[in-house]
Amino acid sequence: MLPAQPLPSPSKIKTVAIVGKYMAAGIEQSLSEISAFLHGAGYAVVLEAETARNVALPNTRPMTPEEIGRHADVAIVVGGDGTMLGIARQLAPYGVPLIGINQGRLGFMTDISQEGMIPVLTDMLSGKVESERRSLLEGTVERDGQVIFSALAFNDVVVARGATSGMAELKVEVDGRFMYNQRSDGLIVATPTGSTAYALSAGGPLLHPSLSGMVLVPIAPHALSNRPIVVADTCTIEIEIMGGREISVNFDMQSLASLRHHDRIFVRRSAHAITFLHPQGWSYYDTLREKLHWHEYPSQAGQLK
Amino acid sequence: MLPAQPLPSPSKIKTVAIVGKYMAAGIEQSLSEISAFLHGAGYAVVLEAETARNVALPNTRPMTPEEIGRHADVAIVVGGDGTMLGIARQLAPYGVPLIGINQGRLGFMTDISQEGMIPVLTDMLSGKVESERRSLLEGTVERDGQVIFSALAFNDVVVARGATSGMAELKVEVDGRFMYNQRSDGLIVATPTGSTAYALSAGGPLLHPSLSGMVLVPIAPHALSNRPIVVADTCTIEIEIMGGREISVNFDMQSLASLRHHDRIFVRRSAHAITFLHPQGWSYYDTLREKLHWHEYPSQAGQLK
Amino acid sequence: MLPAQPLPSPSKIKTVAIVGKYMAAGIEQSLSEISAFLHGAGYAVVLEAETARNVALPNTRPMTPEEIGRHADVAIVVGGDGTMLGIARQLAPYGVPLIGINQGRLGFMTDISQEGMIPVLTDMLSGKVESERRSLLEGTVERDGQVIFSALAFNDVVVARGATSGMAELKVEVDGRFMYNQRSDGLIVATPTGSTAYALSAGGPLLHPSLSGMVLVPIAPHALSNRPIVVADTCTIEIEIMGGREISVNFDMQSLASLRHHDRIFVRRSAHAITFLHPQGWSYYDTLREKLHWHEYPSQAGQLK
Amino acid sequence: MLPAQPLPSPSKIKTVAIVGKYMAAGIEQSLSEISAFLHGAGYAVVLEAETARNVALPNTRPMTPEEIGRHADVAIVVGGDGTMLGIARQLAPYGVPLIGINQGRLGFMTDISQEGMIPVLTDMLSGKVESERRSLLEGTVERDGQVIFSALAFNDVVVARGATSGMAELKVEVDGRFMYNQRSDGLIVATPTGSTAYALSAGGPLLHPSLSGMVLVPIAPHALSNRPIVVADTCTIEIEIMGGREISVNFDMQSLASLRHHDRIFVRRSAHAITFLHPQGWSYYDTLREKLHWHEYPSQAGQLK
Repeated sequence: MLPAQPLPSPSKIKTVAIVGKYMAAGIEQSLSEISAFLHGAGYAVVLEAETARNVALPNTRPMTPEEIGRHADVAIVVGGDGTMLGIARQLAPYGVPLIGINQGRLGFMTDISQEGMIPVLTDMLSGKVESERRSLLEGTVERDGQVIFSALAFNDVVVARGATSGMAELKVEVDGRFMYNQRSDGLIVATPTGSTAYALSAGGPLLHPSLSGMVLVPIAPHALSNRPIVVADTCTIEIEIMGGREISVNFDMQSLASLRHHDRIFVRRSAHAITFLHPQGWSYYDTLREKLHWHEYPSQAGQLK
Repeated sequence: MLPAQPLPSPSKIKTVAIVGKYMAAGIEQSLSEISAFLHGAGYAVVLEAETARNVALPNTRPMTPEEIGRHADVAIVVGGDGTMLGIARQLAPYGVPLIGINQGRLGFMTDISQEGMIPVLTDMLSGKVESERRSLLEGTVERDGQVIFSALAFNDVVVARGATSGMAELKVEVDGRFMYNQRSDGLIVATPTGSTAYALSAGGPLLHPSLSGMVLVPIAPHALSNRPIVVADTCTIEIEIMGGREISVNFDMQSLASLRHHDRIFVRRSAHAITFLHPQGWSYYDTLREKLHWHEYPSQAGQLK
Repeated sequence: MLPAQPLPSPSKIKTVAIVGKYMAAGIEQSLSEISAFLHGAGYAVVLEAETARNVALPNTRPMTPEEIGRHADVAIVVGGDGTMLGIARQLAPYGVPLIGINQGRLGFMTDISQEGMIPVLTDMLSGKVESERRSLLEGTVERDGQVIFSALAFNDVVVARGATSGMAELKVEVDGRFMYNQRSDGLIVATPTGSTAYALSAGGPLLHPSLSGMVLVPIAPHALSNRPIVVADTCTIEIEIMGGREISVNFDMQSLASLRHHDRIFVRRSAHAITFLHPQGWSYYDTLREKLHWHEYPSQAGQLK
Repeated sequence: MLPAQPLPSPSKIKTVAIVGKYMAAGIEQSLSEISAFLHGAGYAVVLEAETARNVALPNTRPMTPEEIGRHADVAIVVGGDGTMLGIARQLAPYGVPLIGINQGRLGFMTDISQEGMIPVLTDMLSGKVESERRSLLEGTVERDGQVIFSALAFNDVVVARGATSGMAELKVEVDGRFMYNQRSDGLIVATPTGSTAYALSAGGPLLHPSLSGMVLVPIAPHALSNRPIVVADTCTIEIEIMGGREISVNFDMQSLASLRHHDRIFVRRSAHAITFLHPQGWSYYDTLREKLHWHEYPSQAGQLK
């Protein structure tokens, strides 16, 4: 597990950034409310540049993610997990902690609801807060010994075949140790954060965010024994394209298509990490339980089938 | 991951213990060969007491596992993974490193084959060796606030219902945080070592032994979203019996039956660990690949369907 | 698929049986309402004997399930799927069609809600009804060539090991053809009706009730390739106990424990079937969708992650 | 199950076609041997036209699959399952029974080994044979009410998203009844024959070929409860593209790419079927057991863990 990063003490928080879901209808009201609250509490408020194109907030300066990274002490993200995914990866190099407020449905990362958000934010900015670090993956693609692409991924790095081509064949090595030649639709390398996303659909396990691990989940593997495998996040994973056509690699949402045979994808934990702030008493299991509809209450006598 | 324990330097190895599979037919020849080799190389050789009841070896002193723990510098185990499982748990408190030689089929833990074992052992005892530490679980059962049972498990702790009773209902907490009330046939908490055993059959992922994690695998859970979850092995897992009849708990092979409602099972990583010695160049992935029949060679052009 | 049984024409329905969930609190009100409605509509009303012990209804004669089988033209079952399971198996030999009304939550078989049930029943008894036949399994256990047990199962026949014993080993033959020796916690043979129950938890597929098939689902099988297999329901399945201890066999809720090595369990489709009546327009997929929380509405543009 | 088609009585078999794996190295020897045997036994021998381009056999007339369909009484296919898949679909409209001989590894459909094939063929052509019918799927794609594509599939019809696009959203109806809106990588509709192919990799169950069913297997579905579902093969399945980009549909190996939103794919059982001939005593379970490495022998006492 990553050591918890020291939080800015409440008195050090001067500038708060607001990030809104891209082009979201009806989000203006929430952003205004948050902005008014922050101004009232004496913070400098900046607005992410894309958000600022759709929503005008008085007394807020638009800033690119990079500027937010350099100037803001905290960022409040309003939207869904996709919104968080997009901005978190951009802010990762700067270490700005993030607070996620969901629009409508609870998200895995945007776990504060809009109703009653102001008192929650008040408490959090006064220091009543739990901090949690999430790891990122750093991926590079090499062709003929040259790096031709590199990107960060917060959820996963996915190597996959094209829809109308035959199986991909991928040679996998971990820390230079040969694992297997896998024939499948593709392979997902996911962080704990990504373990609730695509990896879960493909049959992977859940990983608690505090686990220092990442999971390799084959997608529709030809061999039934090619089960998901969890490795320490200090490992370097190397995936070499051995067969198949129209292979691509995806880093969260960014894609590199048209990989060639013997292209190699290296995946390792990034030196950067993301800090999420949660209200005191927050538990990841509460989020899992609600998102996955797990049973909360013991059944009453006689109710068990 | 557990830090690698400093190995006894070759010159410090004086006493080597031999442990044979319980009541195994035809094992005498292998044990004699190993014993003769060890004597020839100048080691003191001791024989595990149960083994000694079935196999007579000249110049070897029978010792209980506890005595082996106190006196031997290395133990050579001949048999299958079950043999290793049994002795490893007993030797765990003493830190004696283990070498596993399989009878017949490759094991996950007994990964040296009988054919050609003498040159392999020669190399290993001369220091050409890779050392690997495996974690154990420590489980305790509490009833009305009193500990009524405790045991170590190398593979897994399994809480399960009886065959002719209805579903078990288990309340699970991790580090005091409520996870869920799970209705199922039972719940497996497995170490990385145990992830290739029962947990795999029940749908769990593989965990590399160097991962500092353990996995919770529900057995035939009522809720389809009760997927396996991997947590850091610094966690304490608490399982409370909320419903069901004839519930039992198994620690590897030791069982405690007739659990009652509100009995609580606590599972955490043991302070002890087990050290396996492997020949140089050993890789866990080689074992996985052979045991799980993973593809080794790239398919030839046109062979992919 | 079983041919649809000719329904009693509305004018032929004279006697309607009411069956209530065993010992259910708060069910009296519903049963009274149904009874009053039936009397008002001119039907003779009988009450299942167990139900009659807990609920007194004026002008209803208590009857055993066997008497209901012989005398009633339709049975209305109020409770959960467990209630339906119990009575359906008993009424199967008599061909009495069943209407299921759920208490609280929608059931797979009790798919009419209590609210507004009277107009629904009015329509159904007037002939606005869809009829559906469900197959049952008939199982027999042979020891030393003698039948020592036989029973019907509406959901499944389950052969399973005891909780504290090692794996079961089961030799499976289908129509006299050897399938495999399976090592596992057990084996489920399920009807389409049972495919949403225990078999689903153990990893089995859903079978539409109109499919003339049954599914064999191994429970936590040792071999990862021992996947669920669906066979025609004209097959006879033979399961011989080859290894393991404390093996038992369960027919829905009835159990036979202490099976011995070489005991053989034969499972085939029963000559009897169960007829469910549903309101017009009923679709099994509606029930599946609601019970399994499947998506009903297309996501809005941009909502897809 | 499809009724078994009356076989040509041995005396009616005049013309036998030989089909070889496309461009396979080293196949000439086998084909020559078969051809010599057939000539010696007095049959007219024809050679599939593609095969004839690579292999010259004396006294054999090249024929297109269509001509084989019209003129041959039996076809002997030498290669792998892919070879069988390709020719079977082309011969399906003509009802020519097929004998499969594998090159190297046992296939699911090419289940006779090259070694000793001549005595096996002698027996089979003399009438010592088991006949088995396999169903095919017929798929059509409609756009704006017009059929724009149609094809047969012996294994499966697969609707899938492109590798670099977001999830597909598919509305599924069965016999006009709404099943669900499924978000996933795609959906497989497989025959029993196809249940051992891609559908198995994606998590589907095995279907015995005598089952009158087909299985819908979602690929990496977003909702964990979107489990494989087996329906009667008298059903018509309709899949409407509701969301996603770069959606394609594959019929075995033939693809139609660039589907648009609201395109609809209809899948139903074809009026045609394929007849496989097997040596007497053949059992599908023998093939499954060997291909899937199922346990054949009971374990010895004490071997069970």
